[in-house]
Amino acid sequence: MFDKLFSPKSVAIIGASQKPLSIGNVITKNLLKYEYKGEIYPINPKADEILGIKAYHSILDVPGDVDLAHMSIPAKFTPMAMDECGKKGVKFVIINSAGFKEVGEEGLALENEVVAVAKKYGIRVFGPNCQGIINTDPELKAYCDFTFTYPEEGHISIVAQSGGVGALFMQAIHDLSVGLRFYASNGNACDISIPEILRYYGNDEKTKAIILYAEGFSDPAEFMEAAREVAAKKPVLGMRAGRTEEGAKAATSHTGGLAGGGLSTELIFKKTGILTFRDVEEMCQSAVALSSQPIPKGKRVGLITDTGGPAIIATDELVDAGLEIPELSDTAKATLKEQLLPQASLRNPIDVVATAGAPHYRAALDVLMGEENIDSVYINFVTPSFVDCEAVAKEMAEVSKQQKKPIVCNYMTDKPQWTGTTANMKEGGIPCYDYPEMAAKALAAMTRYNDLRNREIGTVKTFDDVDKSKAESLLAEAKKANRTILNAKEVYEILAAYGIPAAPWKIANSVDEAVAAAEEIGYPVVIKADSESIVHKSDVGGVAVNLTDKAAVESTVNEMTNKFGAKGLKFFIQKFMPGGQEVIVGAKAEPGLGHLVMFGLGGVTVELFKDVSFEITPVSDAEAKQMLSSIKAYRLLSGFRGAKGVDQKKLVEVIQRISQLVMDLPAIQEMDLNPIMAYEDTICVVDARISI
Amino acid sequence: MFDKLFSPKSVAIIGASQKPLSIGNVITKNLLKYEYKGEIYPINPKADEILGIKAYHSILDVPGDVDLAHMSIPAKFTPMAMDECGKKGVKFVIINSAGFKEVGEEGLALENEVVAVAKKYGIRVFGPNCQGIINTDPELKAYCDFTFTYPEEGHISIVAQSGGVGALFMQAIHDLSVGLRFYASNGNACDISIPEILRYYGNDEKTKAIILYAEGFSDPAEFMEAAREVAAKKPVLGMRAGRTEEGAKAATSHTGGLAGGGLSTELIFKKTGILTFRDVEEMCQSAVALSSQPIPKGKRVGLITDTGGPAIIATDELVDAGLEIPELSDTAKATLKEQLLPQASLRNPIDVVATAGAPHYRAALDVLMGEENIDSVYINFVTPSFVDCEAVAKEMAEVSKQQKKPIVCNYMTDKPQWTGTTANMKEGGIPCYDYPEMAAKALAAMTRYNDLRNREIGTVKTFDDVDKSKAESLLAEAKKANRTILNAKEVYEILAAYGIPAAPWKIANSVDEAVAAAEEIGYPVVIKADSESIVHKSDVGGVAVNLTDKAAVESTVNEMTNKFGAKGLKFFIQKFMPGGQEVIVGAKAEPGLGHLVMFGLGGVTVELFKDVSFEITPVSDAEAKQMLSSIKAYRLLSGFRGAKGVDQKKLVEVIQRISQLVMDLPAIQEMDLNPIMAYEDTICVVDARISI
Repeated sequence: MFDKLFSPKSVAIIGASQKPLSIGNVITKNLLKYEYKGEIYPINPKADEILGIKAYHSILDVPGDVDLAHMSIPAKFTPMAMDECGKKGVKFVIINSAGFKEVGEEGLALENEVVAVAKKYGIRVFGPNCQGIINTDPELKAYCDFTFTYPEEGHISIVAQSGGVGALFMQAIHDLSVGLRFYASNGNACDISIPEILRYYGNDEKTKAIILYAEGFSDPAEFMEAAREVAAKKPVLGMRAGRTEEGAKAATSHTGGLAGGGLSTELIFKKTGILTFRDVEEMCQSAVALSSQPIPKGKRVGLITDTGGPAIIATDELVDAGLEIPELSDTAKATLKEQLLPQASLRNPIDVVATAGAPHYRAALDVLMGEENIDSVYINFVTPSFVDCEAVAKEMAEVSKQQKKPIVCNYMTDKPQWTGTTANMKEGGIPCYDYPEMAAKALAAMTRYNDLRNREIGTVKTFDDVDKSKAESLLAEAKKANRTILNAKEVYEILAAYGIPAAPWKIANSVDEAVAAAEEIGYPVVIKADSESIVHKSDVGGVAVNLTDKAAVESTVNEMTNKFGAKGLKFFIQKFMPGGQEVIVGAKAEPGLGHLVMFGLGGVTVELFKDVSFEITPVSDAEAKQMLSSIKAYRLLSGFRGAKGVDQKKLVEVIQRISQLVMDLPAIQEMDLNPIMAYEDTICVVDARISI
Repeated sequence: MFDKLFSPKSVAIIGASQKPLSIGNVITKNLLKYEYKGEIYPINPKADEILGIKAYHSILDVPGDVDLAHMSIPAKFTPMAMDECGKKGVKFVIINSAGFKEVGEEGLALENEVVAVAKKYGIRVFGPNCQGIINTDPELKAYCDFTFTYPEEGHISIVAQSGGVGALFMQAIHDLSVGLRFYASNGNACDISIPEILRYYGNDEKTKAIILYAEGFSDPAEFMEAAREVAAKKPVLGMRAGRTEEGAKAATSHTGGLAGGGLSTELIFKKTGILTFRDVEEMCQSAVALSSQPIPKGKRVGLITDTGGPAIIATDELVDAGLEIPELSDTAKATLKEQLLPQASLRNPIDVVATAGAPHYRAALDVLMGEENIDSVYINFVTPSFVDCEAVAKEMAEVSKQQKKPIVCNYMTDKPQWTGTTANMKEGGIPCYDYPEMAAKALAAMTRYNDLRNREIGTVKTFDDVDKSKAESLLAEAKKANRTILNAKEVYEILAAYGIPAAPWKIANSVDEAVAAAEEIGYPVVIKADSESIVHKSDVGGVAVNLTDKAAVESTVNEMTNKFGAKGLKFFIQKFMPGGQEVIVGAKAEPGLGHLVMFGLGGVTVELFKDVSFEITPVSDAEAKQMLSSIKAYRLLSGFRGAKGVDQKKLVEVIQRISQLVMDLPAIQEMDLNPIMAYEDTICVVDARISI
């Protein structure tokens, strides 16, 4: 599909130049410097030769086929150049030039124009306002980009819309002495999209791990489909900047406020199986481990160390990340006792001591590889001057190459001195880290990936006991009346239409009706003044709770009538539900994505601790369950300090029903069931609002 | 004081050896390799020459003075060797050998013996079971250590008990192309202590920042005194491993459980003004900035960037760390508009765009240095192939050398290619980072240091309205009766003796006394069965709340008598205090340190969110205030959602009184006022326990 883009046999540079600080010059230079094995055709109307290569005045003059053309010419000339590319039969064009969508209306028009020309000829466009692509294959070595890092061959592929961040990733991987497979940074992404590139990487066998950076999704659904498909095949590591939008919006407590742009991207990542990171270094370092080591089957780590302090630091970090450091079996300890130095510590971490040599490390490694209750191995290796470290590294490399269980190493050395040892580590494909924390974080990320890969996706249940057309007609009525906030009757009728249990209620127009309603519902009751003109009911005395008899209902209705006037005033009478645990379920429309559904507990846990969970619709049963269990205050739902828990099954069902409801009724902008009273064997909504 | 240790004019190596993998050989080699300017005297009874230097059979044969002697001989020979050192007039001895305290009783005896010999001669001992010291002064170049990193001269000094961690720090700083001043790792620390070394660094003018790693304090008070003194002069960066002890202990909710070993070290750091870190890399990277740049006066950051994405990532990290990115003044914007490229973005972050050259960077830097509402400068500098980056770096270096406001730089380049640019950055003393997050974290640490340096220490108030001897006699009585848990009467009398307000209470022995007590206190009341044999009162029906009349008191007392038997049973009658905000104040003895005092809210915030704060006694007024304001749920105390706040002044006073109480009564092991009911204008303890 993108073979001619990522593995072009020939590259033309329209706008190749002799000026050393021009982009056309840098691209040509990069192809030469990186030793591109295909044909290079510099195109320049005035030059016959650029950097020692024959140049052509027009792409139409090029003798052979052109798989890929760069354009580094002023934006306004690109449609004409595209037309020539079409005539030449070029399949892919990378437009490096800026001056398109990013500069406003005029630029956008130009971008549309150049894409239209390309479409006419079946040309796929990469960019504009972008860097380009790199393919490290030693048989090809295509450096179609103006950046400055020259990666070696490897198994990590990078796709980043932002060139700055893409280059940052590429340089970081390079600084770690690790290779790349593909690099792509597509700037404005007018045609070839991130999801398409992701799919291409997904189908590439040599790509073992993918690093992804996006600043937004023009089509979230397309992205999710591609991400789901690729993440099922190999690790995709994702990061999105702008997360403090979330922080800023988290200041307010309602659903809308708690969900920020950064949040929904992270939810997309989670839902599709992309491993999410919030730190560039941690992501790049984790990619190194994920591209070279097997995936751990669980969270039990065995540690080998030749120095005490760093083992404590690593333990802290591993335990913090939710990993476990189990005791070793007696058989393992016996073997270690026999084979390690007398001063060695046979617990986990295994301290082989600083004077340990190759056989000691090998013995410890073999024991951990054989231990049933160990899933991964962490090594602290400080290279003492009085040990044959090359031999130690050789043993580690041998064990690593068996690919039984993942190994990471906090490799504490002065690399310019320990070159042989470093080479052995690299040859063995052992991910080496400069700090114990980073090695631990990489191992934790691998374990997190295993959890993600094996996560229960669940099924999206479609409830067939719902009355969609009833709900639709209620919304249509409100819309017709130009109301964006539904009244209580409408809200509760919609809930009823979707089988969501609410406290019994009635609407009353007078004192007598109110009393009759209260007696039918049964005391105690709540009365809310129901009128379009009253917005913050409880602030203005429009809510009275725990009314236990007829007299209380009568006096409340009379007081409210005096306060708000009889005109248009109705009374919403509802059963008063005391006790129970308050919970909140909400939903908020997220353009292009459907809705976000929120779950949290009422009171301080939401307001002060932001202890809430989110999912994107449709919410499966497994996801709904996880929304409950992932809040910190989950213990309050499952039974805490002797108190009984609440009916979680019914809560899970309500979340699923809300998911179906907002998907059926996309006009709903925000919806809050706040609170739902949850009891041991039942739940019921006692306040709700819907806006459209 | 330690001049002859850190700047020895001559070094003897007792145990110098020709065997290449021996420690005595490595130490001699290191002195030679590092080009030590003093005299080297290898001591070996059988060799006349080691590594080309004249060797002596005994230290007594050495012709000149010996400032410092290494011992890398079997432990059992060290007392004899120490005696010879004494006779020779050696002032300092580094014992590298292992086989002392760390191997058990016998080793400890040997350690004590060798220290005794040293004392006799006035020799100060460094180690044993340690690495040694390094002084990078180009006039001396003393490498008295067997590690392998050869640092250049600089302004960071490291002191670490653990050699592994010390070496990790040293290598990390070295890998960052930054220099060191002193290095010291003293292992068992039998004589020369971490506090003494810290003080020496504090008095050393060339040390601009200190990195400290400790795994425990043999004398916390000595450490605190030294730390306070040194931290007042220069940045001390501290880290302690083992923090997940805290995690494990945090599982239970009482004071004792919430305070772990790692926690008290971090409290010591905070109280004495040491900047605490939980990540080696972040600490080392922050030390680089703190040792070369001025301290920011506030948290307002101005950003300059030549690429979009990394600026977003940096903003996320800075904002997460509590820093601010203020808008620029109109004057600043006007200047920028005039001096930057037309495509540049004049907001904060200032995007100078990728094609920006030296004058543009200089203009942006000058503007930020002149802006009143900017305290520090963050730069993203990707080095484009089409820009004269050396010239850009030169301008940055010039501005940096003015030392007006701190600068950090996320320097995105391929260093082996951009050598001239890198050299200019280094010459300007600009801390350069590989990742935007790390640059942001370093800037955040510098800002945190400014806050720490300017923190309000407050005063420790001594309340003179307390009755210490009364409290002492109550404790003495309980001790005499072999009781470790005080009874209710004792607890409340101690609280009263220290002026801590509690709900009115009385002890009753019968129904009649109970009714009389209740009527004197005033209904409603609480009754608690008060007997040594009843431990978990509320679980077994030994607590009844909200008793509103005589009948309720009578039936409660009768029921309890039936249930528990009359023998030894008394009744604790207390005013029932409804409403209010539950808070908890606790204290727990911490050996060698005094007590830790804890503050938190009652209910889920402590149990589920571990939302508590701690301080070490004595707790000053400022510290007590900070204990209140530093919990996440502080808003519940200061007034939340229209609700009134509570009497914080009285809470602060109670914390101070508890601090005085436990300091006066060191026998108290644990003390919990749980809960204290806090109201708008008063507070009162309604349940309390004390164990001794």
